[in-house]
Amino acid sequence: MKKPKIMTMGEILVEIMTTQIDQSFRRPGNLVGPYPSGAPAIFIDQVATLGIACGIIGCVGDDDFGRNNIERLAQDGVDISSIYKLNEHVTGSAFVTYLKDGTRDFIFNITNSASGQLSMEHVQEAYFKDCTHFHVMGSSLFSFHIVDAMTKAIEIVKAQGGVISFDPNIRKEMLNIPEMREALVLILEYTDIFMPSDHEIALLTNTNNEADAIKEILEMGVREIIIKRGKEGCCYYSEKEKIKIPAFKINELDPTGAGDCFGATFIACRAKGMDARQALIYANASGALAVSKKGPMEGVSSFAELDEFILKN
Amino acid sequence: MKKPKIMTMGEILVEIMTTQIDQSFRRPGNLVGPYPSGAPAIFIDQVATLGIACGIIGCVGDDDFGRNNIERLAQDGVDISSIYKLNEHVTGSAFVTYLKDGTRDFIFNITNSASGQLSMEHVQEAYFKDCTHFHVMGSSLFSFHIVDAMTKAIEIVKAQGGVISFDPNIRKEMLNIPEMREALVLILEYTDIFMPSDHEIALLTNTNNEADAIKEILEMGVREIIIKRGKEGCCYYSEKEKIKIPAFKINELDPTGAGDCFGATFIACRAKGMDARQALIYANASGALAVSKKGPMEGVSSFAELDEFILKN
Repeated sequence: MKKPKIMTMGEILVEIMTTQIDQSFRRPGNLVGPYPSGAPAIFIDQVATLGIACGIIGCVGDDDFGRNNIERLAQDGVDISSIYKLNEHVTGSAFVTYLKDGTRDFIFNITNSASGQLSMEHVQEAYFKDCTHFHVMGSSLFSFHIVDAMTKAIEIVKAQGGVISFDPNIRKEMLNIPEMREALVLILEYTDIFMPSDHEIALLTNTNNEADAIKEILEMGVREIIIKRGKEGCCYYSEKEKIKIPAFKINELDPTGAGDCFGATFIACRAKGMDARQALIYANASGALAVSKKGPMEGVSSFAELDEFILKN
Repeated sequence: MKKPKIMTMGEILVEIMTTQIDQSFRRPGNLVGPYPSGAPAIFIDQVATLGIACGIIGCVGDDDFGRNNIERLAQDGVDISSIYKLNEHVTGSAFVTYLKDGTRDFIFNITNSASGQLSMEHVQEAYFKDCTHFHVMGSSLFSFHIVDAMTKAIEIVKAQGGVISFDPNIRKEMLNIPEMREALVLILEYTDIFMPSDHEIALLTNTNNEADAIKEILEMGVREIIIKRGKEGCCYYSEKEKIKIPAFKINELDPTGAGDCFGATFIACRAKGMDARQALIYANASGALAVSKKGPMEGVSSFAELDEFILKN
């Protein structure tokens, strides 16, 4: 058996947060950051923290925001040799403020940042030599040249017998572009493990009904579907199995990164040979620990931390 | 006499500052912001605060960073009708940290921000109807399409008998591009009032010697040169006059914006009909008050504040 090597690709950002609820970016105030962030970066950092060989393809600027990310990822064990430092673009950023109603408000600089320059030239076949698993973050698919790059990476990994997982956290506006929708359906057709949040299950199907959407996706050839239901836990569907796991109860401090840590932990556990139920329990624990810490990538957990948490809860 | 209307054009940014000396952007930490910023924006806000009719041409994103700036400028009396809100680009930003040796370290998102999209189409002749004075900030001249836009604005104002002032706070890299250097020399040839810092006086001349540079620039047709010397005060040169004014002693808290407030106050005082010496004293006071407040645009002063400060110092 090949040494498992999990890879992903996409935006590597810094996040700057307000310190007060309902704090507006229309006035100066106290902030905290820059925290390393970006959904694929959080995902892969969680994979590395579980001791699995892994890497990320992405672009940052040649600036301290980029170094902030690269140093954290390297320190946690992520292979950073395919993170490109661009001279003409700054590292992407996300400013986030938390509103009274529990939602978040963002100001993003991604499309015109280094992360927006990711393209097929950054996808080098040699880098995938040991790759057995490639994870696609829907948030990364905000331009056609990135979709092309993603498709190239998927085809390389599929051709060598690897597994594709897909977390479709896509911006709604993207789905209104017909060619973008087609590209996403194509990615879903390549997918082995589909990991939507509950409101995303029918995003790319011909039906709006959850049960029909699950059936349709399994019939497309997707082997496993994991639906993330937040405080309601998660559900797992395959041809043969249906599993429901309740969520752990936890005091939510910062929801950013919870879904990424959940997905990373499920994939990492499966790569270690665990069955779906065991992987889901760990994934639930990982999501719960992620929301209990402030900062997008601050809530990643080791197996020791997950075991301790599961034992206590 | 026409009602004086001072105008400028260029980058409108938010600034985010660290709270500790030597704080790095490679690690999360406490920050404060977003403050309204951008050299031309600070300049025009100081002009407005002195009660002079004025306006700025610039681009921001359709986001709260843009609204942060627009609301502050409008509140202080700047005409904001030529600030364009762009959909595809975020408002520019500058992260700044203060180092132990007194220097500053920046991470800029300007070139690929809304501010970098400024071009000739944003320079509408009708907007200049009442304009008697146009101020050029060298920091704004970071692309050829902005230089073209600036040249168009200068030619409109010159054609209707207006005055051009030029503060050449240019990034050094720009001067290494031969065509950019030529464009800047062209702007200097149009200039009536040149306002460099001491290290900038010979940037665009054929000599490195200050006295020769002053002579060369006056011979080009520039009518007045004001050299900003920081703690050493300022010097004024014209064909007939040479004036030296010492600086006020002040506890420096934040140097950002001091040169912009100095320049704005000199121009505003001249527009009100004061002689050069009187305008320089007010300009010195304005620069001194600017550095005594944290935040790039937070240190602008009214005539009442300037008079009170001058009386006490």
